[in-house]
Amino acid sequence: MTSGDPFDIAPWGIGATGWDPERIARRESVFALSNGHVGWRGSLDEGDPCKVPGAYLNGVHEQHPMPYAEDGYGYPETGETVINVPDGKVIRLLVDDEPFDIRSGTLHEQTQFLDFAAGVLRREVRWTSPTGRGVTVRSTRLISLTHRSLAAIDYEVEATDAHLDVTLLSEIVANEPLPEVHPDERVKKALERPLVPVETFVSGERATLLHRTRRSGISVAVGMDHVVEGRATVDTEVADDVARTTVRARLGRGDGIRIVKYVAHESADALEDATLRDRVEATLAAARELGWEGLVHEQRAYLDRFWAHADVRLDGSPRLQQAARFALFQVLQSAARAEGRPIPGKGLTGPGYEGHTFWDSEAFVLPVLTYTIPDAARDVLRWRHAVLGLARERATQLHLAGAAFPWRTISGRECSGYWPAGTVAFHINADIAAAVVLYVGATGDTDFERDHGLELLVETARLWVTLGRWGADGSFHIDGVTGPDEYSALVDDNVFTNLSAQRNLEAAAAVARRHPDHARRLGVGADEMAEWTRAAVAMTIPYDHERQVHQQSAGFTERERWDFEGTDAAQYPLQDHFPYFDLYRKQVVKQADLVLALQVAHEAFTAEQTARAFAYYEELTVRDSSLSAPAQAVVAARVGHVDLAMDYLTEAATVDLADLRDDVDDGLHIAALAGVWTALTAGFGGMRETDAGLQFTPRLAHPLTGMAFGICLEGRTLRVEVTEEATTYAIDAGPALRIRHFDDDVTLEPGTPVRLETPPLADPGPAPRQPKGRSPHELLAAADGDHEEH
Amino acid sequence: MTSGDPFDIAPWGIGATGWDPERIARRESVFALSNGHVGWRGSLDEGDPCKVPGAYLNGVHEQHPMPYAEDGYGYPETGETVINVPDGKVIRLLVDDEPFDIRSGTLHEQTQFLDFAAGVLRREVRWTSPTGRGVTVRSTRLISLTHRSLAAIDYEVEATDAHLDVTLLSEIVANEPLPEVHPDERVKKALERPLVPVETFVSGERATLLHRTRRSGISVAVGMDHVVEGRATVDTEVADDVARTTVRARLGRGDGIRIVKYVAHESADALEDATLRDRVEATLAAARELGWEGLVHEQRAYLDRFWAHADVRLDGSPRLQQAARFALFQVLQSAARAEGRPIPGKGLTGPGYEGHTFWDSEAFVLPVLTYTIPDAARDVLRWRHAVLGLARERATQLHLAGAAFPWRTISGRECSGYWPAGTVAFHINADIAAAVVLYVGATGDTDFERDHGLELLVETARLWVTLGRWGADGSFHIDGVTGPDEYSALVDDNVFTNLSAQRNLEAAAAVARRHPDHARRLGVGADEMAEWTRAAVAMTIPYDHERQVHQQSAGFTERERWDFEGTDAAQYPLQDHFPYFDLYRKQVVKQADLVLALQVAHEAFTAEQTARAFAYYEELTVRDSSLSAPAQAVVAARVGHVDLAMDYLTEAATVDLADLRDDVDDGLHIAALAGVWTALTAGFGGMRETDAGLQFTPRLAHPLTGMAFGICLEGRTLRVEVTEEATTYAIDAGPALRIRHFDDDVTLEPGTPVRLETPPLADPGPAPRQPKGRSPHELLAAADGDHEEH
Repeated sequence: MTSGDPFDIAPWGIGATGWDPERIARRESVFALSNGHVGWRGSLDEGDPCKVPGAYLNGVHEQHPMPYAEDGYGYPETGETVINVPDGKVIRLLVDDEPFDIRSGTLHEQTQFLDFAAGVLRREVRWTSPTGRGVTVRSTRLISLTHRSLAAIDYEVEATDAHLDVTLLSEIVANEPLPEVHPDERVKKALERPLVPVETFVSGERATLLHRTRRSGISVAVGMDHVVEGRATVDTEVADDVARTTVRARLGRGDGIRIVKYVAHESADALEDATLRDRVEATLAAARELGWEGLVHEQRAYLDRFWAHADVRLDGSPRLQQAARFALFQVLQSAARAEGRPIPGKGLTGPGYEGHTFWDSEAFVLPVLTYTIPDAARDVLRWRHAVLGLARERATQLHLAGAAFPWRTISGRECSGYWPAGTVAFHINADIAAAVVLYVGATGDTDFERDHGLELLVETARLWVTLGRWGADGSFHIDGVTGPDEYSALVDDNVFTNLSAQRNLEAAAAVARRHPDHARRLGVGADEMAEWTRAAVAMTIPYDHERQVHQQSAGFTERERWDFEGTDAAQYPLQDHFPYFDLYRKQVVKQADLVLALQVAHEAFTAEQTARAFAYYEELTVRDSSLSAPAQAVVAARVGHVDLAMDYLTEAATVDLADLRDDVDDGLHIAALAGVWTALTAGFGGMRETDAGLQFTPRLAHPLTGMAFGICLEGRTLRVEVTEEATTYAIDAGPALRIRHFDDDVTLEPGTPVRLETPPLADPGPAPRQPKGRSPHELLAAADGDHEEH
Repeated sequence: MTSGDPFDIAPWGIGATGWDPERIARRESVFALSNGHVGWRGSLDEGDPCKVPGAYLNGVHEQHPMPYAEDGYGYPETGETVINVPDGKVIRLLVDDEPFDIRSGTLHEQTQFLDFAAGVLRREVRWTSPTGRGVTVRSTRLISLTHRSLAAIDYEVEATDAHLDVTLLSEIVANEPLPEVHPDERVKKALERPLVPVETFVSGERATLLHRTRRSGISVAVGMDHVVEGRATVDTEVADDVARTTVRARLGRGDGIRIVKYVAHESADALEDATLRDRVEATLAAARELGWEGLVHEQRAYLDRFWAHADVRLDGSPRLQQAARFALFQVLQSAARAEGRPIPGKGLTGPGYEGHTFWDSEAFVLPVLTYTIPDAARDVLRWRHAVLGLARERATQLHLAGAAFPWRTISGRECSGYWPAGTVAFHINADIAAAVVLYVGATGDTDFERDHGLELLVETARLWVTLGRWGADGSFHIDGVTGPDEYSALVDDNVFTNLSAQRNLEAAAAVARRHPDHARRLGVGADEMAEWTRAAVAMTIPYDHERQVHQQSAGFTERERWDFEGTDAAQYPLQDHFPYFDLYRKQVVKQADLVLALQVAHEAFTAEQTARAFAYYEELTVRDSSLSAPAQAVVAARVGHVDLAMDYLTEAATVDLADLRDDVDDGLHIAALAGVWTALTAGFGGMRETDAGLQFTPRLAHPLTGMAFGICLEGRTLRVEVTEEATTYAIDAGPALRIRHFDDDVTLEPGTPVRLETPPLADPGPAPRQPKGRSPHELLAAADGDHEEH
């Protein structure tokens, strides 16, 4: 990405060398390991120096009161914030009683490398203590993709001097102090030392800590066990907030001591403490039985299978190749074993956004999961289904029918403290419905459709019918909502929302027809289905006939235009420098909104409408959100502005790796990472869902000379290999698959790749302009400048 | 009022007898005494039972952090809340060592009476202690209208049994515990015991406590002195938070002991402590010199002068007569000696609204003050002028020119924690400008106009020019603001706001032309004045041509109508039972907005437009605010629906005396009380300002058979006496005054009353309807029902 990028380029991993006090937290985020259930930030083994310690168990959170200067009806009263579970990744080291700390002594070399193929984080450090005693430390860390609650560390110390006394303190640490919890006293109080010790267990080298969160009442058990290789004394002890196995050895020059540490994690709202402990013990026993090499082998086998169908190969740019695989690997890590829990905006890579899940999950991450690891997509939707009761309660509170899913949450309860960009962003309901439709369409999972999808579609459809209203003109309107663009709020007939609601209503009716008995059990009758269809057909899509362009929402194009020329670079993001009311009343777009509608509801727009709308909204879109560039990349590519699309792809790929927004310390932007995959497949691949199956309109742009990606489709893999001249499609199993390449329908048979030429690109006209200073080129250049200042 | 009304009817005062534990706080509010600078709630002398102790000094407040669940640019960080100053009204009584407490022993009789003519609160209690010892206590309390910082109590105990040992503990109590401070921890912490003791002074029977607020750094000195009549021992002592004079006497049957207590109050941001104390001492010395009878005499003389020109006489309804005088008396009390301080929404009668001042002050209270005690109106506007610097800073923060006055404040800093009904309610700036124009027009005070008014008009005009924008059609728009109706927010071209801004701009240009040198010093040039005029002329006033009715704001009449039929009585106020977004997007009006524009900007509407608009908005207005009924009364009367006007007048007069909204415990609704006067004069009197002077269109309604009121106009008094047949106008001094009676222009000469007949009332057609259950009749009936449930 940018010249300030400190990461080493490699096709199947990402590495960094040395140590940079300014970039501790950023590396902790980038090198995070997770399987969607357990997450460890890439902190150094020895625990220090550390900026943001991070050990998470999906769903484990603490509650806190939500403060308001002025109260209002329906304001959520209880907030939720992700907390650190007891941290089992700490292995402190003493060399001749001197703490191993890369800030003291002499750091000869340090390398960290996150391996996408092996699914491990490797580290090697050569260091001499302040008193002149040398060691080499090698560690490999993994969070198992095959054993959901298990993490493990292979840790080795080698003496480079003679007669070295080495002490390893392998720990589980609870209630670690955090850098900055929350500015509000009440919240801070609730989140300080959130884990109350319940019980400790120790037996040989095995130790378990059992805690309970103070308010949310979640029990958490974290246990560890060790296998020590080499001559050493081993001793294990526990206290309320720490379990510690001490390994002491005297090493000769070239001698080593190696320990394998297994860490098991369990949490529950309601289980007996003994049950939790038993589960931890069972996981540890199984891990010992399997052994480190067994775990590593399983991990690689899992990833071999994943990459075999999901890899995106990019020719012509090693940087983009790395970024694409990093993105997909982190998306996989965020979701692989979440199973019944949501995907937070930051995955399990940091405490950003309080660990909440947003619409990002369904609108950005689930499409990628659906096509690469569909079970994970299904599991997220099952979680939404599991919290339908809370969404129904919320709808009732708002005097609406059906279900109103929360804008941000961990447990399923609404935790948004700013309703104009929370409660009224009702499109999240349609985003969930769209994810259901996409998942079922791509997998053919009719069991899910019947048992979970139907009810999600029905309850969200019910919401729209009561949220919207019939106009005197016979059209259906949805007033007073907020769409994706957070610089507009409380608008009428937001196109993205209305098109999404339209599809939600249509899908509910269609799926109810497919499962009439189950629909009847949900109280769906013919009248209700007819009402959904009527509302869908009559949905208002505002269009400015004078300017011949769709309106992001009713009247949008008649609003005053933001004074982009008069806005300095330092005044972005605008929300930090201007009051909401001024943003809301003017034409200025934070993030793709109408353009996202162009992407996902492409069939609602003609090619000419798409091109005009894209050009119009490009001039207004400032991209103060990481969720914007991917959609802009997709639509830019589809309308033929492939170089611009490449710029947006580069920006999306840069958000985390070059810390474009100076906020990676708190965790990765999982949705933006998902957007990298989408920009490639749906943008440069031109992939889109149509009534007649998937359509592709592949076109590359410099520096890409070739691209290949795979898509899971009803149990088989579709591989798409794109060159500048042609695209080759192949499926690995039956039955035959109908796709469309540009305007040609093709039927693919297993084992018979089909190569189709790329038609010439019609001149898309001049590239659209962005607001002053906000082109992706300028943003990247500005970010470079920032980084150089460090 | 309503049948649940527990107050005794009298023409020049209001009384209550007995004691009702349910109504303690309400009586404390109704019997509050104030001069606008010092305020004492009507608590019982002995301090208990008490619900909301209240001793206020205008402007004395404490700061506290303002909490937000999610932060935003420009959100105020520091809140302000009125606090109790050391309370000097407490005189505890022991009868044979038994505390005098009306909850114990036998209460034979208790009367309280607030005397509007004397300006005192009288109380008499006959009581026998649990041990059978009887006393009669008589107290008279006043807060001096002639000595700004002085309050005094004449307290007398008479023995109705022989050999009674009586002990009086006359106190100043600081940091009294409050019933419920604030739900938020940070705020609560900041407001608990807000006064830090600095110093105490005692000398003979004189004692002074000096405190300082912890965060806002305001020094407060309260001192007392006593004159004791009767044989007694007297002893005075002080501690940090209490000063106490103990008076002991042994009384024979029929003997009495009487003390007069003087209490002086001073506060300052910056003065030396010694200066504060000296001022207190000087005030106490002057008070002793003057004596109780002297004080009482001055008080009555002050009020005699006030009532002589300002009284509203109502024939035909003793209840309405009392309500009208109560209202005017409380308005006077809220403002008479505020001098450089704002008028809080509750005056100094309680802690409601945190003691903040709002637009109520300029839009509702100042018109009454302008016509009855114009110096007080001037002083409030001088306060606005004094805090112009803060308003300029706020405008700069919002990227606007000129001044943006705070929606709610004590110090002049914005304290609104909900921007959609705070920051963007920019009309407050035009409300202040309108108050300037009205004051100068009624008084001819050109010194004020030049030295204060001009700058207020210029800086508010500058705001509008940058807040608004020029449309492609050449018209001037003001987008994204909130008008008076808090059930609509972030609207474009709110008629009330735009008409008010228009007058603001016109007045700024006109006054700048009258004072060219001073205008030049404010940087006002010909170009800027021309711009103001252009914007005023081009101001957009949305009108629905299909429905032939003005739109409260652009598009308002096309919004979905609130489901009034489906809304239960228990669901009012709507804001407590429905989310804002649903209220905002529908046609439902909390309080007069377009109707307030009909009232104050009457010349912008034809008679037909006024009648149609009134009827249209009547169907939508639910009056969930006490600020609504007065404007509805005025416009109802003007369009000829005089019985409906009477209902609204009755409602306005009932808000406090029958506790219509169940919130009088926290203080009186000063603006609604001002609205009683306005409903009478501008409604039944038909008084309105026109370019050709005041116009009157007087019409009475049952039960009124006659009405007389006085208006201060450029130093003279205009008396208007209305009967059903005719109206008599008279001025008491020269020069001649031109007025208009209906459509006739009349010139009044001093000493020559003019009697003009009332033309017949044209049929106004059927009375407009209100939303289900929200007619003033229904509301009053519902309030009656509520009270009966107690």
